[in-house]
Amino acid sequence: MRYGYLGPETTFTHQALLQALEVMPREITEQVEQVPFSAVATATTDLLAGDIDALIAPIENSVEGGVSGTLDVLAATDSITIVAEQIVQVTFVLAAREDTALKDLEVVSSHPHAQAQVQGWLRGNLPDAHVAAASSTAAAARDLAALSPEQAHGRAAVCSPLAAKHFGLTVLAEQIEDTEGAQTRFVLVTREGRIPARTGADKTTLVVHLPHNRSGALLETLEMFSANGVNLSRIESRPIGDFLGRYSFSLDVEGHIEDRRVAASLRALHRICPVVHYLGSYPRIDGAHPEPREEFADETYDEAHRWIEKLTGMVAPEPDRA
Amino acid sequence: MRYGYLGPETTFTHQALLQALEVMPREITEQVEQVPFSAVATATTDLLAGDIDALIAPIENSVEGGVSGTLDVLAATDSITIVAEQIVQVTFVLAAREDTALKDLEVVSSHPHAQAQVQGWLRGNLPDAHVAAASSTAAAARDLAALSPEQAHGRAAVCSPLAAKHFGLTVLAEQIEDTEGAQTRFVLVTREGRIPARTGADKTTLVVHLPHNRSGALLETLEMFSANGVNLSRIESRPIGDFLGRYSFSLDVEGHIEDRRVAASLRALHRICPVVHYLGSYPRIDGAHPEPREEFADETYDEAHRWIEKLTGMVAPEPDRA
Amino acid sequence: MRYGYLGPETTFTHQALLQALEVMPREITEQVEQVPFSAVATATTDLLAGDIDALIAPIENSVEGGVSGTLDVLAATDSITIVAEQIVQVTFVLAAREDTALKDLEVVSSHPHAQAQVQGWLRGNLPDAHVAAASSTAAAARDLAALSPEQAHGRAAVCSPLAAKHFGLTVLAEQIEDTEGAQTRFVLVTREGRIPARTGADKTTLVVHLPHNRSGALLETLEMFSANGVNLSRIESRPIGDFLGRYSFSLDVEGHIEDRRVAASLRALHRICPVVHYLGSYPRIDGAHPEPREEFADETYDEAHRWIEKLTGMVAPEPDRA
Amino acid sequence: MRYGYLGPETTFTHQALLQALEVMPREITEQVEQVPFSAVATATTDLLAGDIDALIAPIENSVEGGVSGTLDVLAATDSITIVAEQIVQVTFVLAAREDTALKDLEVVSSHPHAQAQVQGWLRGNLPDAHVAAASSTAAAARDLAALSPEQAHGRAAVCSPLAAKHFGLTVLAEQIEDTEGAQTRFVLVTREGRIPARTGADKTTLVVHLPHNRSGALLETLEMFSANGVNLSRIESRPIGDFLGRYSFSLDVEGHIEDRRVAASLRALHRICPVVHYLGSYPRIDGAHPEPREEFADETYDEAHRWIEKLTGMVAPEPDRA
Repeated sequence: MRYGYLGPETTFTHQALLQALEVMPREITEQVEQVPFSAVATATTDLLAGDIDALIAPIENSVEGGVSGTLDVLAATDSITIVAEQIVQVTFVLAAREDTALKDLEVVSSHPHAQAQVQGWLRGNLPDAHVAAASSTAAAARDLAALSPEQAHGRAAVCSPLAAKHFGLTVLAEQIEDTEGAQTRFVLVTREGRIPARTGADKTTLVVHLPHNRSGALLETLEMFSANGVNLSRIESRPIGDFLGRYSFSLDVEGHIEDRRVAASLRALHRICPVVHYLGSYPRIDGAHPEPREEFADETYDEAHRWIEKLTGMVAPEPDRA
Repeated sequence: MRYGYLGPETTFTHQALLQALEVMPREITEQVEQVPFSAVATATTDLLAGDIDALIAPIENSVEGGVSGTLDVLAATDSITIVAEQIVQVTFVLAAREDTALKDLEVVSSHPHAQAQVQGWLRGNLPDAHVAAASSTAAAARDLAALSPEQAHGRAAVCSPLAAKHFGLTVLAEQIEDTEGAQTRFVLVTREGRIPARTGADKTTLVVHLPHNRSGALLETLEMFSANGVNLSRIESRPIGDFLGRYSFSLDVEGHIEDRRVAASLRALHRICPVVHYLGSYPRIDGAHPEPREEFADETYDEAHRWIEKLTGMVAPEPDRA
Repeated sequence: MRYGYLGPETTFTHQALLQALEVMPREITEQVEQVPFSAVATATTDLLAGDIDALIAPIENSVEGGVSGTLDVLAATDSITIVAEQIVQVTFVLAAREDTALKDLEVVSSHPHAQAQVQGWLRGNLPDAHVAAASSTAAAARDLAALSPEQAHGRAAVCSPLAAKHFGLTVLAEQIEDTEGAQTRFVLVTREGRIPARTGADKTTLVVHLPHNRSGALLETLEMFSANGVNLSRIESRPIGDFLGRYSFSLDVEGHIEDRRVAASLRALHRICPVVHYLGSYPRIDGAHPEPREEFADETYDEAHRWIEKLTGMVAPEPDRA
Repeated sequence: MRYGYLGPETTFTHQALLQALEVMPREITEQVEQVPFSAVATATTDLLAGDIDALIAPIENSVEGGVSGTLDVLAATDSITIVAEQIVQVTFVLAAREDTALKDLEVVSSHPHAQAQVQGWLRGNLPDAHVAAASSTAAAARDLAALSPEQAHGRAAVCSPLAAKHFGLTVLAEQIEDTEGAQTRFVLVTREGRIPARTGADKTTLVVHLPHNRSGALLETLEMFSANGVNLSRIESRPIGDFLGRYSFSLDVEGHIEDRRVAASLRALHRICPVVHYLGSYPRIDGAHPEPREEFADETYDEAHRWIEKLTGMVAPEPDRA
């Protein structure tokens, strides 16, 4: 089994994959081959083609927001299914080769998103250092480790603690991120096929296009969730791409498609929205287990269903004159 | 087959029954025995006991509003089913015995509801006449017809044209009602059993109690209809009777329980309301045939249902470690 | 000062007036002359003509529901203002002349509404007695008291304990009502003029006609209250009278017109409903003092108002080319 | 007057500025100095410090979605005001030095966003070319123009037609974008101060934080617009940054703060949302002039306001005993 991730080794996405593997049974993880990719789009193509079996990708970051590349891939197809989520605590270190002092630093390299998250620290502590772009935080660390000691002089990388350790770098400063406690959420996707069973602590991900001939369409869509007691935990708008003002919405809702209240909401969306992509129901990483109010419990839906079945069973087969 | 009505003969309820029989096939109407009652409550007891097979009763009047006696009977049981409606145009005549002139009138008798609807005319035309109560407009006519010519002198009845004709009275003035075009709507009920088949031009009658622990409960209830594109054509509040501020609502909605949008609304009500009495789906007397918007059409509900069925069919039988 | 009530003396409406006078200062009550009327419509005509200064009338009963006569008078004019409410506990006694035993009774007289509320007791205890109609429970008692001892033999009245006492009758049975704890609510109305000051425990009464060209109009109307955190404590539909299916709604809401949340709701209703009659804001008889959530507090509305004032103050006087 | 833009010269943002200047009166444009910046954040700092007087920045692209950098600057302060919008049609050319043929190309440079929009064309037409990053499409063109003929051999830039022309490059292919008709919308902002006058065809931009203690908060927020007939033309969620699942929303609504319906919506938002940033009301570039329904017209709001004023004027100054 081949699992793709945004590489190279020791990226935050790689960490997410390692976290995901940790909670799987040994007989599965022993068979997993980890395959680095440079872009979600390429990895998705390989997933759909059968070259890899699963793929882990970042979907949102608590500071930077939704990850457009992943959202657009998810919006473009309903042939893939999200089967799990992972959350990685995002923290950065400033790492250099042995014997490098903070005061010697002239060049600091990292991925632009990481730079954005440490720019306050850099301005305060290394106001004169040049900031160079790398294709990932892991690549910044790896490339620094590959230099000759002379070349590496005066250089540092902003990367994850894991990357610093993996590539044998020395940590000059840690937790240098401007916003403490930032998190990135990742999703593990497979080709469409099997939806994970309901655990009682689940999440469902959707992409919907709104009916465009009606104002208030987003309101109407949210009312369908509200009418069934279903909470939204994420909402992200993305352009559909044809012209300004046309959006699709990427949504996470609490619950599993086997929860009657979720199924009822989805049926309603299917009626009113021109496009609804169901991207999967999967266990919540936080294990939270919100108990629905009685009116939204499975048994309440089932009773209502049986009541209507009984009544429609009493309808005469064809019109007569009463 | 015995059909009960609020008597005596030639009341407006009797007219409604005659109208109802007119549209039934001859092989049925030939077997119908018409049974007058003096109160809806008594007739309902007989209906539930099997002494009569159907009952016609007024439910609302365009001037006087809901008919409490009928509404309360309908609210108290879900063992009866409305199978048809009738609308009677309410018009009154002033009827007397032969050779009576308007100027001779001293006493005018009628049912209090009828008096209320002609009081303007009486004040204008017979300001000095005494107004006497009768138990129905038909009884006023019948009793006048039964008097000796001497006793009948100076007397008139406010009644329906049918009653005047049936009891051989002379019409001194017609259309004496203050509000032109008043109508009374009647329902034909049977013991629970068979719901008339869907005709495409149907109405459904319900009684609901609102959840009492939540403000905004009526709003929430109406939203369930709105979310399914179901229009209300009648809403009437009635006290539940335990204390002030607790109401049940008697509702007519457009459509038949076999219309998916009606069934979906009812399922939602069943979930949120402590009591929902389904009182029947039956053809609209006006034959109006409103076409639902595409999102509320049967086929749209059925497609959404099939989509969810397909998706839940893909759920793994039990949790595993993805 | 002349205060009208539905008479004769000792009716429940009279009791409501006595209760209302009890809580007024002596200098006012000393000047009040109590004037009995036989109908709300007549009394209202006198009120509008200036012949009386105030009028007390029943508006709803916890068993019988809304009082149509009063509701229709309130719906027809906005030239009167409700300034207070009263609630009377409804309980009935069976009263007769001295030396009458239960077993001797042949005729029981009362007002039809009262009869409806004691019919279970009568069926159980006096199955053979004839039930005769009186124009009010007080009239039944008064008329019985006026009979000669011989005429009064075998007769009883269903009336209030007050009426029995006032007319010197003997109570044969008390609390004979089928539903324990029934209440009637009364409103005290004056000619339009002065609205009672806000006490913090107030109620506001309205009559609205719904926009007839839009389905979902009742839903939309209720949303205006919900959006401003205003609870409904009474809703009663009444026909407008022109044709079936057209209703006005008589509403009580919690709060005073000087509460910003109530004023905001009324402004919204005024925009969307073709007719809104404001019938007054007045102290709640139960003194309940519900604290609005912060978002619905006066100060919150006032701050929002000041914020918009400040912003609109920054708008350029006329368009230019930025 | 100094107007900042994302430079260097001939970027799409520069084009937007030129378009904006075209519609201003000559006496203003003659005084405008165009000042290029490399980042929105830096330019905003200069704007707030008074070093420049206005700033134009991209806010959304029909293919790429919201521009996070601009949205986050707008979300972070309410000390700036949007005074105008511009829309630029996004089209790309492949530009090279004279005498370069398509088949000779080995390196193509551009900004990553531009690369994303032409990647299909590049894969199809230059599958073997190396793609190099530049800090903007204009910089790619400028840098190519600055090379010696030898250095420039085998090189091309993906840039705007304007940039190609400005830097004297030859266009090898035009309209190479994968999605035809892409547009970017720009906003022109000033330091808070004066809001452009109402033109009747206006737009208002807001940033709101939702109340976090209540599910359904987004629904509730949208209902405030719906209740006032205000349409949304853009909605974009951005993380607040403290933890996953907390969002602010950047919204454009139709109308001007002087439109009563817009002011009423904003007042309601101010009551229920912990943060509402008003970022300005300004003329719509498309000039569309949607007429509100009667219930949302200014005069309707004003009438409702006067009605409540009249009623509250009738409230007694202090409680008495009616």
